[in-house]
Amino acid sequence: MSNLAFEPCGIVTFLTDFGLHDTYVGQMKGVALSIDPTLRIVDLTHDVAPQDIVEGAFQVWSCVEAFPPGTVHVAVVDPGVGTDRRAICVEAYGSLFVGPDNGLFEHILGDASNVVEVRNRAVQRSRVSETFHGRDVFAPAGAYLASGRVGSADLGPKASVESLVRLPPVTGSGAGYIAGRIVSIDRFGNCITMLGASSLPAEPQSGLVTCGTFSVDAIDGTFADVDEAEPLAYIGSHGTLEIAVRNGNAAERFSLRRGDWVRVRRPGGQECAAAGQ
Amino acid sequence: MSNLAFEPCGIVTFLTDFGLHDTYVGQMKGVALSIDPTLRIVDLTHDVAPQDIVEGAFQVWSCVEAFPPGTVHVAVVDPGVGTDRRAICVEAYGSLFVGPDNGLFEHILGDASNVVEVRNRAVQRSRVSETFHGRDVFAPAGAYLASGRVGSADLGPKASVESLVRLPPVTGSGAGYIAGRIVSIDRFGNCITMLGASSLPAEPQSGLVTCGTFSVDAIDGTFADVDEAEPLAYIGSHGTLEIAVRNGNAAERFSLRRGDWVRVRRPGGQECAAAGQ
Amino acid sequence: MSNLAFEPCGIVTFLTDFGLHDTYVGQMKGVALSIDPTLRIVDLTHDVAPQDIVEGAFQVWSCVEAFPPGTVHVAVVDPGVGTDRRAICVEAYGSLFVGPDNGLFEHILGDASNVVEVRNRAVQRSRVSETFHGRDVFAPAGAYLASGRVGSADLGPKASVESLVRLPPVTGSGAGYIAGRIVSIDRFGNCITMLGASSLPAEPQSGLVTCGTFSVDAIDGTFADVDEAEPLAYIGSHGTLEIAVRNGNAAERFSLRRGDWVRVRRPGGQECAAAGQ
Repeated sequence: MSNLAFEPCGIVTFLTDFGLHDTYVGQMKGVALSIDPTLRIVDLTHDVAPQDIVEGAFQVWSCVEAFPPGTVHVAVVDPGVGTDRRAICVEAYGSLFVGPDNGLFEHILGDASNVVEVRNRAVQRSRVSETFHGRDVFAPAGAYLASGRVGSADLGPKASVESLVRLPPVTGSGAGYIAGRIVSIDRFGNCITMLGASSLPAEPQSGLVTCGTFSVDAIDGTFADVDEAEPLAYIGSHGTLEIAVRNGNAAERFSLRRGDWVRVRRPGGQECAAAGQ
Repeated sequence: MSNLAFEPCGIVTFLTDFGLHDTYVGQMKGVALSIDPTLRIVDLTHDVAPQDIVEGAFQVWSCVEAFPPGTVHVAVVDPGVGTDRRAICVEAYGSLFVGPDNGLFEHILGDASNVVEVRNRAVQRSRVSETFHGRDVFAPAGAYLASGRVGSADLGPKASVESLVRLPPVTGSGAGYIAGRIVSIDRFGNCITMLGASSLPAEPQSGLVTCGTFSVDAIDGTFADVDEAEPLAYIGSHGTLEIAVRNGNAAERFSLRRGDWVRVRRPGGQECAAAGQ
Repeated sequence: MSNLAFEPCGIVTFLTDFGLHDTYVGQMKGVALSIDPTLRIVDLTHDVAPQDIVEGAFQVWSCVEAFPPGTVHVAVVDPGVGTDRRAICVEAYGSLFVGPDNGLFEHILGDASNVVEVRNRAVQRSRVSETFHGRDVFAPAGAYLASGRVGSADLGPKASVESLVRLPPVTGSGAGYIAGRIVSIDRFGNCITMLGASSLPAEPQSGLVTCGTFSVDAIDGTFADVDEAEPLAYIGSHGTLEIAVRNGNAAERFSLRRGDWVRVRRPGGQECAAAGQ
């Protein structure tokens, strides 16, 4: 667990599944700037697959290292808006994470030092709609925190990490293999897992990494290690296993989808069949 | 009419139908920052359907409440660029709205206290292209206004609200019903009208809200009031009637399109046929 | 060649082919703001066709005039990431351009006064991934330059303009005609070349501008010069020849694609056949 205490640096990030067709994200920014016009607002992505908490949780995690401590990350993938799901603020890595309690912060909980519920009406808009807590609850709470005008203790009662909603695991193992779900497919068709580099076998062997009809015998350093249009498995920019096709689209070519399991054969493990975990 | 006088707060918003494939929006920002590098620029949306002034007018209106007074909103959906359509600046809600005189500011005119034409060449780029007034006329005018270096009176001659181009109405009524056009369909397939909550009947009845084959008997509070995949009508985050499918896509399922009329049966009104207004 | 020396104005632009689905652009911004939280970051576009250096080079060039001198433009369209392609910084127009040495800066080289390689590890992230130099090399170098904490001479050894990777020409000529490739197709289906206005004949003649089945007899001033749904050729907002359909989509209607050659008949030149250059 990091020992950093949160000190606001004036940066707020927004991550949503709202897309950019509508003005929803613009409205969130207007609300935040109404509270503190000096905030620097950064978009992480607004193209999380609609209501896909698993992809959103990965995307939140993917940005943690890139931002300075003192950042407030507001994340809204919120199929339960309007129900009694809780709104929470998690302190981790010296930053704050504000959003619904639905698993979106799954991958930063290992560092979580403090969790509170967001309940204080004074840090919400005066009228809270039933369908848009991004604008009416999460953006204003994030802006108040980033401005330094309130601390997380002002948001509401403490909650325990143990009480939070959790996601099903995205990594696992079986007889002779470890496996990681495809948590996101990027613009280039590269398929990303959360299998960390240190958990992976170093030695090539037949069928080392498989997913459906995708199969390679080694984990390569980078695209340049294989020929044009060849499949490869490599440690991506998140430090985790990805599968791809050099200058091609692996997801399309091998019909891979978010949620599919990528298997990695352990040294001496049996060759994997094409089926899922 | 609000009595707020415009005092610039340093925020400029951009709303266009330019999309994000091209650098058009980036060029507008460069021009604005060349005039005042301290401006905070916020994107409302750049994905207004190409040349769809009706959707653009809704999108402009949708953001007014979220931004602080003193904001300059630059909006460019401009099929008439290069013709003799006027460029205008409207003062309303303590903010300024800069764009073409083609109906884009339809829904904020109720609060308009002042309208001027944008004609002064000193607040335009030195060379004005025939096809890109967003960069050469509207962005620089907006930046000068937001910087406080010019006031709206410096832009050009006064114009009357009555002289402005208006849109066809997006709400109406008939025997036993009121009706609102679908002005926008959001990323989730929710279909948005501008029928305000206060104009709507509170009592459920058979076929209360219809649009094509879409039909519900009540206006619900929120998504959670109906079962998964069920249709519903509700007051959305804009304070107006929307029709949707819980965790589904209403536009796709019921083949709804921008411009379609949603009918709401008045108490005792006849059940609506499926046809348009 | 301009005589402007680079003086940082605190603006950094990002142009990539990363799209906005992923958090790659967000991560670049986090890294830049970790170095200098006061930077103003502007997106030019992130929707360059994947790995299309020709379109990227056009997009970079399209923004130069709109931004103030002292801007740092970071551009990443980088199919060679992980190979030994060089990272460079080019000084031109009083601004700096940071990215891979692969032709992306082709159209600003005419003004280039200084080129250096980006090699100094002190302006890179401590761990540089093999696949994401946008985040680990180019964004931090750009941020350090824009902050004024390092000058281009601190990045690495000088390189000559002559040593840079160049693109195949996007303009050319033949017997009786000049020609320009479609370097980009914008959201409206308008097809953009880099044929400058001054190189074009002023007099109308039969088949003056052709591309596949597209053919017009004159270069018009603007959309309003032709009837609705009619094809036209005109000088676009970049000061170069574009072909379009008024309130229609030329690329779809005439099946035009990036890379196609648009021919312009010289006075007295033979009428062009429909074939390419």
